[in-house]
Amino acid sequence: MALPTRADLARLDADDPLAAARTRFRLPSGVIYLDGNSLGALPAATPARVAEVVETEWGRDLIRSWNTHDWIEAPIRIGGRIAPLIGAKANEVVVADSTSVNLFKLAMGALSLRPGRSTIITEAGNFPTDLHVLQGIEALAPDRVRLKALPRDALAGEIDEDVALVALTHVHYKSGERWPMEAVTARTHEAGALMLWDLSHSAGAVAVDLNGVEADLAVGCGYKYLNGGPGAPSFVFVPERLQKELRSPIWGWMGHGAPFDFGDAFFPADGVRRQLAGTPGILGLAGLEAGLDAFEGVDIHQVETKSARMGDLLIQLVEQRCGRFGLELASPRRAVDRGSHVSFAHPDGYAIIQALIARGVIGDFRAPDVVRFGLTPLYLRFADLWDAVDHLAAVLEQDEHAQPRFRTRQRVT
Amino acid sequence: MALPTRADLARLDADDPLAAARTRFRLPSGVIYLDGNSLGALPAATPARVAEVVETEWGRDLIRSWNTHDWIEAPIRIGGRIAPLIGAKANEVVVADSTSVNLFKLAMGALSLRPGRSTIITEAGNFPTDLHVLQGIEALAPDRVRLKALPRDALAGEIDEDVALVALTHVHYKSGERWPMEAVTARTHEAGALMLWDLSHSAGAVAVDLNGVEADLAVGCGYKYLNGGPGAPSFVFVPERLQKELRSPIWGWMGHGAPFDFGDAFFPADGVRRQLAGTPGILGLAGLEAGLDAFEGVDIHQVETKSARMGDLLIQLVEQRCGRFGLELASPRRAVDRGSHVSFAHPDGYAIIQALIARGVIGDFRAPDVVRFGLTPLYLRFADLWDAVDHLAAVLEQDEHAQPRFRTRQRVT
Repeated sequence: MALPTRADLARLDADDPLAAARTRFRLPSGVIYLDGNSLGALPAATPARVAEVVETEWGRDLIRSWNTHDWIEAPIRIGGRIAPLIGAKANEVVVADSTSVNLFKLAMGALSLRPGRSTIITEAGNFPTDLHVLQGIEALAPDRVRLKALPRDALAGEIDEDVALVALTHVHYKSGERWPMEAVTARTHEAGALMLWDLSHSAGAVAVDLNGVEADLAVGCGYKYLNGGPGAPSFVFVPERLQKELRSPIWGWMGHGAPFDFGDAFFPADGVRRQLAGTPGILGLAGLEAGLDAFEGVDIHQVETKSARMGDLLIQLVEQRCGRFGLELASPRRAVDRGSHVSFAHPDGYAIIQALIARGVIGDFRAPDVVRFGLTPLYLRFADLWDAVDHLAAVLEQDEHAQPRFRTRQRVT
Repeated sequence: MALPTRADLARLDADDPLAAARTRFRLPSGVIYLDGNSLGALPAATPARVAEVVETEWGRDLIRSWNTHDWIEAPIRIGGRIAPLIGAKANEVVVADSTSVNLFKLAMGALSLRPGRSTIITEAGNFPTDLHVLQGIEALAPDRVRLKALPRDALAGEIDEDVALVALTHVHYKSGERWPMEAVTARTHEAGALMLWDLSHSAGAVAVDLNGVEADLAVGCGYKYLNGGPGAPSFVFVPERLQKELRSPIWGWMGHGAPFDFGDAFFPADGVRRQLAGTPGILGLAGLEAGLDAFEGVDIHQVETKSARMGDLLIQLVEQRCGRFGLELASPRRAVDRGSHVSFAHPDGYAIIQALIARGVIGDFRAPDVVRFGLTPLYLRFADLWDAVDHLAAVLEQDEHAQPRFRTRQRVT
């Protein structure tokens, strides 16, 4: 396939139905940001929205804002804004806590819905926090819970009648591999187990259809493709059909059926609200809500289409311009098997990313040798891909990454 | 005792060593804010600090801020700022999650430090979330965990050799009653149990000395007297002597010993850091850090002294000016037995609070009949107390609270 020119890519931008969405973000000049899969960029409307919450709602209206500015409903309201992006109903999603805490709550809840079954299955090499949370649950009751972390290929074959829960990350944080959600969910249900999807690297970038595939449970991240800000709260999905049975192990007052009666006895709220525990962080929620405003009128299928095309082009450009420098594609070649980031392996991956960052091209590195480029369709232009690969080629051609300043390993986030 | 005049109280303000701290807050005009025990007021420096985090750290520096603005250490750094207010060492406090989630983590961890013991003791009528979290833990393993929620007077006598954990709220959310921390902790240790203090209504208002009383565990709230903003993250205290043994049941990547190695196997971080689970919410942390800036140079013992004096004066003023209207003191009369809020019972409590709010005096109501007035020494003036009681007397004398608009019950937060 002929190498696309920068003009070819600029033409794609001119025809991009999502082109205008870029104006909804405040991107620093001189930067090509390919790390929205780790921390989404700042929406242009967020500073004013957060300032309003701080200065007017908190500062002026004080405690009354729980009612007058409806802080109390924010977790439910904002959950409802996420729902259409992931194929859920508005009353099936709530924003709460961190992804780790939500994984804990849902996995513990799932185990109690499958008494007599003891196995949890996940993928070896899954995102660490997913593995760790499940390992921690196993450690709580090693006689009753057994975690199997299996290689991707061997996983489906191990879903047997002892399995209570299959917990997978839809799009792999490192490779970008995407599980076939419908098939895996169906296979899990065949064995009578529950299926939990971690959508951290999917939500807002690919068109997820939780109810379409009959997923049982899901969690996801607010600060990646949803652009909610650093450490934005996470979300929880529980479909209507499971809302009555599923309990959270963490019984907090915000998940109570009548929190403002201040009664001693706990009974859970109806619906997905019972997944709440403590008082929600209103500043974080405000950031997330402003992030979701940037999706106003956006069709998530258009987002996925653009993401797929960007990924295909990035792979082509990198392979054709930089292939001779030893960069190996570490993501699926077919867009349908990928999420919205593309990874390459290179023994000098760390130094390459540092050299790129020095040039204003921000991707990231994941040990031991993976360079990752996140493609956020809402604010990334096709021409940015051309420019980014041009920088990458320059780094490699000039051996820039061999400079000591790029090789000194620092903490990588 | 003679009724103090407004001039008497204004004189106290003139001599108040904390008077200048009020300028560190942005208080709405026309409001006397007696609800800092529920949501602390906005520090004057917070809007600019939060805006800097949003616009510069997130917006401009993006993912790099985890390192360059040290977001990654924020939970530990801000924990260290809370430590001197509660008698802890800087490396014994970390900011994380909500109070509910932290109670869950610490109580579960405590149980595993006392194998063979099955009882958790708490106070009947404790703050609901404290009760609920512990009830939820009992429900996870009803054959192995037994929760006893006991009346205050009967509690010490029930701490026997089967007790693993005594979990109490230092200052009662409704009555303001303060547990004698040293005696109860000693009694708990006598029985070989662990002592967990919830400092939500103490931290920042009274001088807590966790290490002085040899407390084992503590949690507390960031959004009350620490003025961290609505739903600000909570804090966790684990003393050095327990840091090696105590594990969190929620194993997340931020509590990992080497989170950026992205390894599959979990081993916990050293110290109190292992109580972290997911990615910390940076906007909420920024608010909390700015709230703690307002304590710069403030001696917590001066705070407690002012709080005690304010409480004494409020009780005197209310009883002398409003006693004939049926308001009954629902808090301890002796300051040493109280926290920093004072409550009164009245059958029309709800309507009285609504009528006061309409006059710009913001206290709150707790079912079934308690009106609460929070006294935040950093920003409240003695003369404010006189004015607040003057309004209260006017409401009662003119039967203002009998108006239908004040009696219609709405959700109360």
